[in-house]
Amino acid sequence: MRRPTIKDVAERAKVSLKTVSRVINNEPSVMQGTRARVLHAIAELDYEPDQSARNLRSGTPFVIGLVYDNPNAYHIIGVQNGVLAACRETGFGLQIHPCDSTSPLLAEELAEFVQRSRLAGLVMTAPMSERMDLVNALAARGVKLVRIIAATEDPQDGHACVYVDDHDAAYEITEHLIQLGHQRIGFLWGGLAHRSSVERYNGYEKALKDYGITVDKHLVVPGDYTFDDGFRGARRLLALREPPTAIFGSNDEIAAGVLAAAKSAGMNVPYDLSIAGFEDSPFSKQSWPPLTTAKQATQDIAKQAARLLIAGLRSDAYDDTSTPVHNQGFVPQLVVRGSTAPVRLRSDRNDPHHE
Amino acid sequence: MRRPTIKDVAERAKVSLKTVSRVINNEPSVMQGTRARVLHAIAELDYEPDQSARNLRSGTPFVIGLVYDNPNAYHIIGVQNGVLAACRETGFGLQIHPCDSTSPLLAEELAEFVQRSRLAGLVMTAPMSERMDLVNALAARGVKLVRIIAATEDPQDGHACVYVDDHDAAYEITEHLIQLGHQRIGFLWGGLAHRSSVERYNGYEKALKDYGITVDKHLVVPGDYTFDDGFRGARRLLALREPPTAIFGSNDEIAAGVLAAAKSAGMNVPYDLSIAGFEDSPFSKQSWPPLTTAKQATQDIAKQAARLLIAGLRSDAYDDTSTPVHNQGFVPQLVVRGSTAPVRLRSDRNDPHHE
Repeated sequence: MRRPTIKDVAERAKVSLKTVSRVINNEPSVMQGTRARVLHAIAELDYEPDQSARNLRSGTPFVIGLVYDNPNAYHIIGVQNGVLAACRETGFGLQIHPCDSTSPLLAEELAEFVQRSRLAGLVMTAPMSERMDLVNALAARGVKLVRIIAATEDPQDGHACVYVDDHDAAYEITEHLIQLGHQRIGFLWGGLAHRSSVERYNGYEKALKDYGITVDKHLVVPGDYTFDDGFRGARRLLALREPPTAIFGSNDEIAAGVLAAAKSAGMNVPYDLSIAGFEDSPFSKQSWPPLTTAKQATQDIAKQAARLLIAGLRSDAYDDTSTPVHNQGFVPQLVVRGSTAPVRLRSDRNDPHHE
Repeated sequence: MRRPTIKDVAERAKVSLKTVSRVINNEPSVMQGTRARVLHAIAELDYEPDQSARNLRSGTPFVIGLVYDNPNAYHIIGVQNGVLAACRETGFGLQIHPCDSTSPLLAEELAEFVQRSRLAGLVMTAPMSERMDLVNALAARGVKLVRIIAATEDPQDGHACVYVDDHDAAYEITEHLIQLGHQRIGFLWGGLAHRSSVERYNGYEKALKDYGITVDKHLVVPGDYTFDDGFRGARRLLALREPPTAIFGSNDEIAAGVLAAAKSAGMNVPYDLSIAGFEDSPFSKQSWPPLTTAKQATQDIAKQAARLLIAGLRSDAYDDTSTPVHNQGFVPQLVVRGSTAPVRLRSDRNDPHHE
């Protein structure tokens, strides 16, 4: 037997689809006689509203979810505020869901989150957004989502996304350091699970190559997007026989860790060491000296992602023909502040840590 | 005519309350014949489920809201994570709602947020949680809420709360500075709308009095809980003819601003100036030197608040007799780090900014 649809109910009760929808969702504006007819029709047909569709058709509040696994408070707040701005425009609510990106059961967890909270869709941030196995698993379960990813161009893989070109901004930062005369430029990686980290490294490497500087693997240190890894990585680099004269931390947290390490070693930044970060977190202006970085419009990026999701959800709120939504790219911009300066020759230095 | 209740439906359909609830919420586990009986009974009685009760009885997800107006990313993330921990224990979802605490229409806005998103209740942070007009207006509209407030004791005002005794911790910080020999201790206020700010000032003033030190009003500067106000306030204090030898910023953001101001003036912290903050934000360990502060268990405080709310919600999920829930107090603890040191006599100094 064919499963009855909302249309069957409407026909049997001799009312519009909208009226059936109102009755299902217990909206007040239905006359008693009409409501009774619809309820009887539902009972007779044994019609069961489709759960996922109900979210959008019904009085059930429109809610989207935001999924993240990021240690940086400022970054998360920026993303949240961007998504909230788009929610406010459209009357959507926002549920937040920090998660562990390394969990083997993440697809199940997120699908359960969507179902339990009856979410209309998800905004996914890196690194979850960049794991195609996860994205495909969620899409296969009918989860509508939009991804915020690092990429130099639109991946056109059938999933809505907002992409941020970290490569070119990382290239610019490295070029800025080279133009200040730095040849030994340390690089501190963020988490390898983040595509942004790879893109930032690639930009760094490309700039060095373009300027004829050989990449010295001793100057490249693995780590995560954290202050602590910046601190540790910098200590390691500064302890080298030939330490770098500049360090590019692949986000501002890392760069702040480098700054603390330099200060704890009695170094005068930027004269003894130039430091650059990435993202333009609020605290990159608050450190002393303030950090040279790449301005990433985190809030705008997240807002655009949520708008994309909501536009997609609205286009198929009443049917399944989804209208095309446009992916959008963002390019962070170099911001030069006090933490970078022209290189000093080693012979100029009187810092005992470098002798 | 008496409005029909869920009991009337259950009696007429000869099923349990739970079964009626399942049918109302389109849960799958109801046999077709039973479901039809319930739907016919609903239609005949013109029963309409109560919206607010439905949240808790129904398959509609249990969701609470978190309301905040705080400029500090670390603080907000701590509060969010605490509330989320309690939500995870109980299967609740969390919607976040940053707001403008000075909005004249805040009561309407929050009531609308609760209604639109069908929230079971709200966790309210300061300063909203400390405005009794707002709390009472929301309670009068049937909004269940728990408040996180600054208070030396349980206010026992009939509203659930978690209270943080900032007074004693501020006293301890001031005492710590006095015991290091400081007599001229600057104080930078947080926002006056925050009760915590008043309590922290009171603790500062009490300690000075107990140690026979006159409060010099030139050393007390108004401001908000922000880095920028810390920076500005410190510049003002350091420009005095008789500048302070220590500054107590009433949160860590303010203290970080003081640190930046001191460094930008070429001062050596803690030798030229001792600095203390409040809250023990992650970055208070990351600055150089790390900040003396009062450790506030933000995450635990928020978790306890959410637990209190959820316990209260559960107790009246099926009736209106609310079981007593226990308010709980927290006391921040002094943490001494590198930003405070024994006072140096002015004659010992060679800092041109102070001559």
